[in-house]
Amino acid sequence: MSGICGNVLVTGSNRGLGLELVRQLAESPSPPLQIFAGCRDPNGPRAQDLRELAQKHQNIIIIKLDTSSEASISEASKAIGPKLKDGCLNLLINNAGVNIPGALADTGEKEMVDVFVTNVVGPMLIAKEFLPYLQKAASQSVQHTGMSCRKSAVINVSTLLSSIEKCHETFTMAPMYPYRASKAALNMLTRCLAEDFKKDGILVMALHPGWVKTDMGGPQAPLLVVDSAKGMLKVISSLTEKDTGTLLDWEGKSIPW
Amino acid sequence: MSGICGNVLVTGSNRGLGLELVRQLAESPSPPLQIFAGCRDPNGPRAQDLRELAQKHQNIIIIKLDTSSEASISEASKAIGPKLKDGCLNLLINNAGVNIPGALADTGEKEMVDVFVTNVVGPMLIAKEFLPYLQKAASQSVQHTGMSCRKSAVINVSTLLSSIEKCHETFTMAPMYPYRASKAALNMLTRCLAEDFKKDGILVMALHPGWVKTDMGGPQAPLLVVDSAKGMLKVISSLTEKDTGTLLDWEGKSIPW
Repeated sequence: MSGICGNVLVTGSNRGLGLELVRQLAESPSPPLQIFAGCRDPNGPRAQDLRELAQKHQNIIIIKLDTSSEASISEASKAIGPKLKDGCLNLLINNAGVNIPGALADTGEKEMVDVFVTNVVGPMLIAKEFLPYLQKAASQSVQHTGMSCRKSAVINVSTLLSSIEKCHETFTMAPMYPYRASKAALNMLTRCLAEDFKKDGILVMALHPGWVKTDMGGPQAPLLVVDSAKGMLKVISSLTEKDTGTLLDWEGKSIPW
Repeated sequence: MSGICGNVLVTGSNRGLGLELVRQLAESPSPPLQIFAGCRDPNGPRAQDLRELAQKHQNIIIIKLDTSSEASISEASKAIGPKLKDGCLNLLINNAGVNIPGALADTGEKEMVDVFVTNVVGPMLIAKEFLPYLQKAASQSVQHTGMSCRKSAVINVSTLLSSIEKCHETFTMAPMYPYRASKAALNMLTRCLAEDFKKDGILVMALHPGWVKTDMGGPQAPLLVVDSAKGMLKVISSLTEKDTGTLLDWEGKSIPW
């Protein structure tokens, strides 16, 4: 179904959206060659579902990856590198992220920095660390013209709440200073990486998964995780050159910055 | 000239744009009641020009304020509070900011976080700390209808490079990952504060000073600091309700997010 092939890395994949993305990729009729499922604590109780899923699918490889730690990102790259056929990583989905209650009164330096490190610095360091593998994939995918996720792509999971333009519509129901500031910065990072990686033929874009019934989205969210992941994979598999540097939602609709 | 009255606080005012803003405010035909000039080290060699300026103008009060330190922001508020007539702060100009060379290869967690703390967390903590004084100013300025800098306003000094939309035009000449990410986050902060403070009648907006011949802008910048500050003060003094939550340049032109 997905049209997503080659080697894929999904961060924050032990639960919620990340776990469902890995599941749907693995269960697709033409699944990717290898799905590297990054999670903070592969042996802990919170990775139980991921471990069970990996037992069913030989192409799922669980990788220890704490996206808030430079050392962990470097270790994960060293673990994944030798496992990549021809050293190629075709698709990186920066899904790991955090949110905390964040009205102004509850927000100090610690809250702002912690969320920024996980939601912005992590994706930046991962893109930087895996760049050689993404470049290799882009240069070796001669059968694919233009940019695409089959060639080489970075998807940063963003949010509607990242939209500065839409803030007046969304602020009252979700003040969330640390989350919003971090995701606006992530959008800028996305756009910078898109410009930077254009010469290599690597597509970079930001994707809003919708408001999803997960631990982060809460039970009142209207969208099921299965439908969000399905929509996201459909959007990802249909991306072309014109989509690099954009912010789209899980239905492929554009969101203003 | 400026139409800016009451009590004003300018951060990062020992040099460059901050110093020139303080100078032009002090030398205006109808100057503000008090200009609190925040700088990191009031007694150090880098505050020499500010000290000389303050000797000429009784309404300039130099305040020790390191915008990257929660403790320093709190101390500055305690120092300024008792000096405010009726406890009112009418205008806060968050001018302090940093930039560092920031291509992807040169950027790690430290660079991203350091710039984020000064450029985003600082302005947020200052707005939060001084909110009671800004609220007092808004509620007591019954002679001014609507929002304005004469009533109560927060100006965050942003940059054209904060524009995610314009990134494809500006990236090649100025990659600057930490600076760009921080300033996009500052724009989001501006918009959030504008929504949050609307009920209090406090105007919040972001202002691009142009590319200015300062230590930060470099000698090749086309705009003189005197002209940038003049333009900024003209824009600030003409702001009305419709401008809250916007990003404008020193000539009053709108910049897309």
